[in-house]
Amino acid sequence: MTMHTPADLGSAEPKRRKPRDKPLLIVITGHGKGKSTSAFGMLLRSWARGYRCGVFQFVKSGKWKVGEAKAAQALGGIDWEKMGDGWTWISRDLEESAEKAREGWAEVKRRIEAERYEFLLLDELTYAIKYGWIPEEEIVSTLRDRPGFQHVVVTGRDAPQSLIDAADLVSEVVKIKHPMDAGIRAQQGIEW
Amino acid sequence: MTMHTPADLGSAEPKRRKPRDKPLLIVITGHGKGKSTSAFGMLLRSWARGYRCGVFQFVKSGKWKVGEAKAAQALGGIDWEKMGDGWTWISRDLEESAEKAREGWAEVKRRIEAERYEFLLLDELTYAIKYGWIPEEEIVSTLRDRPGFQHVVVTGRDAPQSLIDAADLVSEVVKIKHPMDAGIRAQQGIEW
Repeated sequence: MTMHTPADLGSAEPKRRKPRDKPLLIVITGHGKGKSTSAFGMLLRSWARGYRCGVFQFVKSGKWKVGEAKAAQALGGIDWEKMGDGWTWISRDLEESAEKAREGWAEVKRRIEAERYEFLLLDELTYAIKYGWIPEEEIVSTLRDRPGFQHVVVTGRDAPQSLIDAADLVSEVVKIKHPMDAGIRAQQGIEW
Repeated sequence: MTMHTPADLGSAEPKRRKPRDKPLLIVITGHGKGKSTSAFGMLLRSWARGYRCGVFQFVKSGKWKVGEAKAAQALGGIDWEKMGDGWTWISRDLEESAEKAREGWAEVKRRIEAERYEFLLLDELTYAIKYGWIPEEEIVSTLRDRPGFQHVVVTGRDAPQSLIDAADLVSEVVKIKHPMDAGIRAQQGIEW
C-alpha cells in the first residue's frame, strides 16, 4: 500500500489496441449497494485483458474493501493505493483527511499524465468533491481531457452533474431494499 | 466447467460463524450496466473470507464473463458452471436453451439442499423466470427456504416482485447514460 513516485512506476508497454477501442470515463453513483463491487468487477475484466490496472481508494476504513484488496493481491499486477484517514466523515481531524485526499489526487493526476494505466479505479472520489476537498472543475477537466488510452471509473454517491456530463457511461445504483431496514447488521463476506 | 454430482462435491467443512452472521438473499436487478460485476465483487469478498463459493451462469455467450471466469480460476476454490446455449434470446433452438436452464436449475437445487456453498451466485437467473423456463414459485420458495448458512445472489433484469419480496437486499442498477447512445461500441476490458 505504499505510494510510488512516477519515476519508479516501471515501463511496461501498453497493449496494442484495435481501432474500435475507445477509452471510457465511467461513473457509478447512487445510494444503493454495489457501486464499488461493480467497479471492481470491471477492473477484473481489464485485468483479464492484460491491461495495467490501478486502484485509488479515497475513503479508507478498517474493514471495507479488504476482500477486494486481498483478491487483487492474489491476482497480481494491480496497484492498490489507500488514502484518507479512517471514516472520513467521522474523522476527528477533517482538515487532515482533506489534506490526504488532496495528496492522493495529486498522485492520481501524475499517473494520468504519465498514462500509467489502461484501467484506473477512483473509488469513492465523489466524497472528495462533495466535501469540497478537491475542486470539482479540476477533477472533471483532468478526467475528461486525459491523454492516450485510459479507462477511468469513478464511484461514490452524489456524483456532480458536470462529471455525469463528461462521462461516457453512468449507472445509478438505487436502493430498493436493504437488510438494515429489517434490523439485520452488515454481513461479512458481502458488505466487506 | 464440468458439472458435478452431489456425491463428488467433497466434504470441506463450513467456516464457524458468529451469532450475528445471517445468510442473505440478494437481488441485483435493473437495466443499467454493472449487475453481474457487482455480484462478482461480492463473491470476491466472500472468497476473501474463506467461504466456499459457487457461480452458476444462466446465460452464456462467447465473450461475456470471460474476465470474471479467468479471475476466479486464478484465485482458485471457486466453482464456475456455465449453462444455456449462446445468446439465449437469439438462440435457434429455444427449447434446447430452456432444457439446459432446467437442468442447471436442478443442479442448483441439489447443491442448495446439500449446503455446498456459503456464497452462491445465480447469474442472470431472472431470464429463466422471464422466459417461463423455470416456475417463478419454485425458484422463490427454493431460495427463500434454503437450509443452513448460504448467501445467495441473483442477478438479471426484471426480477419478479415475489423474488424481491423474499430478498433481504435488493439493488436496482439504472441506466443514466450508456456509450451505445453516443454510437460507441462495447469495450473489451469493461463490458466483457
